[in-house]
Amino acid sequence: MKTGMIGLGAMGAPMARNLKAAGLLHAVWNRTGSKATALATELGCSAAASIRALGTACDAVVVCVSADDDVRAVVAELAASLRRGGLVIDCSTVSADTAREAARVLGGGGIDFLDCPVSGGVEGARAATLAIMAGGDPAAFERAQPILKALGRTIALMGPSGAGQATKATNQILCAGVIQAVAEAMAFAKAEGLPLEQLIDTLGKGAGSSWYFVHRAPYMAHGEFPAGFRVRLHAKDLRICHSMAARHGAELPVVEATLANYRELVEQGHGDEDISVLFRLKEALFGAK
Amino acid sequence: MKTGMIGLGAMGAPMARNLKAAGLLHAVWNRTGSKATALATELGCSAAASIRALGTACDAVVVCVSADDDVRAVVAELAASLRRGGLVIDCSTVSADTAREAARVLGGGGIDFLDCPVSGGVEGARAATLAIMAGGDPAAFERAQPILKALGRTIALMGPSGAGQATKATNQILCAGVIQAVAEAMAFAKAEGLPLEQLIDTLGKGAGSSWYFVHRAPYMAHGEFPAGFRVRLHAKDLRICHSMAARHGAELPVVEATLANYRELVEQGHGDEDISVLFRLKEALFGAK
Repeated sequence: MKTGMIGLGAMGAPMARNLKAAGLLHAVWNRTGSKATALATELGCSAAASIRALGTACDAVVVCVSADDDVRAVVAELAASLRRGGLVIDCSTVSADTAREAARVLGGGGIDFLDCPVSGGVEGARAATLAIMAGGDPAAFERAQPILKALGRTIALMGPSGAGQATKATNQILCAGVIQAVAEAMAFAKAEGLPLEQLIDTLGKGAGSSWYFVHRAPYMAHGEFPAGFRVRLHAKDLRICHSMAARHGAELPVVEATLANYRELVEQGHGDEDISVLFRLKEALFGAK
Repeated sequence: MKTGMIGLGAMGAPMARNLKAAGLLHAVWNRTGSKATALATELGCSAAASIRALGTACDAVVVCVSADDDVRAVVAELAASLRRGGLVIDCSTVSADTAREAARVLGGGGIDFLDCPVSGGVEGARAATLAIMAGGDPAAFERAQPILKALGRTIALMGPSGAGQATKATNQILCAGVIQAVAEAMAFAKAEGLPLEQLIDTLGKGAGSSWYFVHRAPYMAHGEFPAGFRVRLHAKDLRICHSMAARHGAELPVVEATLANYRELVEQGHGDEDISVLFRLKEALFGAK
């Protein structure tokens, strides 16, 4: 299966390398062409002149771009260039609506579409250990296995088109609430003068624990928040959750509170730090301490 | 060490049984005297006529009562009856201030005090697997080991008087934030029509996961919330967190939001269900669905 890769950013570039390692990569394309040329030279594949040129040359295309509009634009070009029986795997994090629309547009030309947002960050993309949450047709999911297995480790079909994005959105809501919990609790513990490392060790084994408590409360204890999951990116994902909830007429308190906090953090220049930097806002609640 | 037990409720009664099994239990006292008589008969120990009578007869006393005022009242009686060199271990969940006050009152008479709130619920109290978060003097903590080991498994000295309560309060803030996360995410996932059991399985392995997600999201998937950690009790603990934060001039968003939710749940008659019943309020955000 000749596979093309569109979007060679922090996630897409290592994913392209893993497709190459699996013997699948045929061509790459990127909005900033110089990135595509450099990676094509590195990997010994072709840098397509356009999305359409890539679509014409490939059987399957993996997409990893930033926003809903980017996905729509790429899908329009692929609908006009991939042959019937082609396959598009979109690993971008966008709304479930965009995924369903993409599936409709491509399906009209006999092209399969899977929404396959990932989690696991840049490290997961490099190590091919991403968690992949897929939405789409079971037969298409079956066909996509060689590609998905080249990119990730935990691969689950969650339902029809959009279900992958809805699952990813659910995960991002979980992350928002948990980081609120951990940041607020740690700021309280610090104000109370507790020994923070011992606290993490003790409560990390209990019912209040979470992945974020075990792995990110230490960042708070040390007051350093090196980029892991950037505030800016989680904010983008939570805006998607906001929109998806709004379609149900719902406004979600954890999502809204966290978005407000993130706006403040971005204004303060913390947009590219790990989301555990929320600790700073919680600490500020305790005044000058 | 002749040990007395004050407070024979859902937690205190099984703790008394474990003290008996360790050969430590000498006398029991309870506000409702009939409970004390029944348990004393069952265990073959004495039912003290008063707190003072218990204090006079014992070297050490374990306390497990409901509220700050109860602890203050019990401590006043024990200060007047325990001999110099006595030891009081308070397993109630109250404010760090109450713990520090108790330590001062008892310390004046040469009696050691440890604040030792526990977590692990009624099951942990029965199985003697409680987590015990202690505050007080290291020498007193050392002396208390036979008693603490009879009651729990994870036993940590967190600092001077009040540090045990502050650690417990930190844990209760964690629980509040995490249950907010899990309930909101699960309500969203349900509204999106995702397969909830598969979702729990998939996201439970990821960075958004938590003890509550793995153990309580299934309650939400099934719409049943059998008593585990009761709304009413967590609300009581969060009011302590509210007061402790207020002493620092802080108001904590997760604590306040959860207290407001719990007031609503209690009004709706859900006060004795597990805190995962918060899912009902989150579901209601999605309208009639």
